[in-house]
Amino acid sequence: MSNSLIQSRRRFLMNVGASAITLPVLTDAFGNSIQSEPRQGRKLGIALVGLGSYSKNQLAPALQQTQNCRLAGVVTGTPSKAEEWMQKYNIPKANVYDYKTFDRIADNKDIDVVYVVLPNSMHEEFVVRAAQAGKHVICEKPMAITPKACQNMIEACKKANKQLAIGYRLHYEPFTKEVMRLGQEKVFGPIKFIESSDGFRIGDPTQWRMKKDMAGGGPLMDVGIYAVQGSRYVTGEEPISVTAQFSPKTEPQKFKDVEETLFWQFEFPSGAVSNSTTSYTAGIERLYAACQNGWFELSPAFGYGPLKGRTSKGPIEQPVVNHQAMHMDGVCKDLLDGKKLPDHITGEEGLRDVRLLQAIYRAAETGRKIDLKA
Amino acid sequence: MSNSLIQSRRRFLMNVGASAITLPVLTDAFGNSIQSEPRQGRKLGIALVGLGSYSKNQLAPALQQTQNCRLAGVVTGTPSKAEEWMQKYNIPKANVYDYKTFDRIADNKDIDVVYVVLPNSMHEEFVVRAAQAGKHVICEKPMAITPKACQNMIEACKKANKQLAIGYRLHYEPFTKEVMRLGQEKVFGPIKFIESSDGFRIGDPTQWRMKKDMAGGGPLMDVGIYAVQGSRYVTGEEPISVTAQFSPKTEPQKFKDVEETLFWQFEFPSGAVSNSTTSYTAGIERLYAACQNGWFELSPAFGYGPLKGRTSKGPIEQPVVNHQAMHMDGVCKDLLDGKKLPDHITGEEGLRDVRLLQAIYRAAETGRKIDLKA
Repeated sequence: MSNSLIQSRRRFLMNVGASAITLPVLTDAFGNSIQSEPRQGRKLGIALVGLGSYSKNQLAPALQQTQNCRLAGVVTGTPSKAEEWMQKYNIPKANVYDYKTFDRIADNKDIDVVYVVLPNSMHEEFVVRAAQAGKHVICEKPMAITPKACQNMIEACKKANKQLAIGYRLHYEPFTKEVMRLGQEKVFGPIKFIESSDGFRIGDPTQWRMKKDMAGGGPLMDVGIYAVQGSRYVTGEEPISVTAQFSPKTEPQKFKDVEETLFWQFEFPSGAVSNSTTSYTAGIERLYAACQNGWFELSPAFGYGPLKGRTSKGPIEQPVVNHQAMHMDGVCKDLLDGKKLPDHITGEEGLRDVRLLQAIYRAAETGRKIDLKA
Repeated sequence: MSNSLIQSRRRFLMNVGASAITLPVLTDAFGNSIQSEPRQGRKLGIALVGLGSYSKNQLAPALQQTQNCRLAGVVTGTPSKAEEWMQKYNIPKANVYDYKTFDRIADNKDIDVVYVVLPNSMHEEFVVRAAQAGKHVICEKPMAITPKACQNMIEACKKANKQLAIGYRLHYEPFTKEVMRLGQEKVFGPIKFIESSDGFRIGDPTQWRMKKDMAGGGPLMDVGIYAVQGSRYVTGEEPISVTAQFSPKTEPQKFKDVEETLFWQFEFPSGAVSNSTTSYTAGIERLYAACQNGWFELSPAFGYGPLKGRTSKGPIEQPVVNHQAMHMDGVCKDLLDGKKLPDHITGEEGLRDVRLLQAIYRAAETGRKIDLKA
């Protein structure tokens, strides 16, 4: 088929629009039954739950570029936002819900996937309700504020026979995929040391991120999780122990509820070790790996891009992409193809991270090394 | 005076040669009496004690470029090295000593300064003997392996009315001086966080650096001291507490005597915090400071150069210099001018660092936060 033919076909298929199709339950390679939707060139309809900054400035614009999904609906508690989004993105009123009417989304054939972009403490409720409404779910990171909540979310999706993805966009990002390859394939020999840190100076002290009951913690929950992910995905290993230290609060009023800066150290089974910092006071963003025969680095490493990388042999050259579009398209491609999502972006991965975040807090609180092998 | 006249005059003065001149004891601005040698365009004669790699590959070549000092003698336990150096650098036999004959250097008018480049555990003895021989002393870092040894060295130099400098070459290095300025003058606002790390993969496991009795410890004593210095000179502050963690040994046979990798965290009075790593297993070399309104970084930060720096506003542009030549010239200029050496390169500074190194080990051994204010 010539390029122009492919392009014509693609354009045609993209214009078919999105109507949800109910398909027979299939069993995947792992023996789990998942509702499978063979790819048909159509776009899955996504409803965003929570219209905060990430939905407004990243996800909605990204959904104008996606091939496998489109912005089909919104769920918001703020009527003025509903109006604004309907107009801006041509969303029919029937696809707009508030938090009370949300469950009626079960009957909406336009919506295939619910993307939960709410404060961390609300993830559990809305993922469970989305699954019960018969929708696949994407949930922002951190998956939840407790491992128990993560387990409930996984359980609910399994019971509803729906797939659950966590907002781990970097697993679809080319610079990140390259450092995963460099580390996991030991291109510079085994990794000996990782410095993986993420922090920024937070503004408005009244935002939910500063409230422990909504966020589950401070910068560790919000951006430290990227540093945890970074050390895990360049090694391809799970840490076996952790030590951690809170730094003193320099603005105790501002940080009365959550930590200001936090350090932690992981040991990995191969002998690799990591030293990490997260902060709501200091700007840091780096993933560095010292290997036996060289090193590689991303800095910036975790933001919305463009990321930038170099190695002991020279710069890392990769295409600059829209992270959110790549992520949603990647997830939706697998959903359309009826494939099980890759393990490292699922609820199980989200749960692994939340357990590690809790272990880091426990290590910092007790001053003890926590054994993670148990 | 025209440029060519200045140059002629300089050339003339440089050719005068170096004969030590005894001068009256003067009192400096700090009220200490120091043997003062007003600058007379002559070069001070330096004798290197210990002809290992640093003497051979850095100091001797640097002394071919220096304006205020020259390589006048050597002290070595290896006769073949003595031969080699005499020939290569045109050193008269009378200016060559071994460790037994060393004290006769007292009578040698060619030698003004003794530079001790021996294994760490030998610094104390040779600094004390050099001072007793009536010479100014430069001593490599770390100053010694115990605070007590440092105090003995300071005492001996004071008693002999001689000055003591530590090999803190970076205090004369332009990129380093620029980050000191950026940090201490709060060009990007107060520093909130510092990542200061130095490590490399060590080769020959039989070298003295791997023996605790000679080195006083592992990478912390050798290169971690640079990371300690870095966090101190960008803040211009002394840490008030420290936590530290040993990483597990991945090559226990190789590292049976000293640590392999070590992490530590400092708190500073201003609220700045640092997180550091040193290692004999992993290559790392970075001094990063996150400030309230931006950041600055050196990487490489501590090696022999060229160093490289950047800030949130762009690259740091500074001349690339020979670190060792700048250091020795700077020290010798003050000696020639009869000035007291700047505090941050003296024995007192060396002692401060050695105390901090000991506190880091204590924190790592006990798992406790060590109060440094006491």
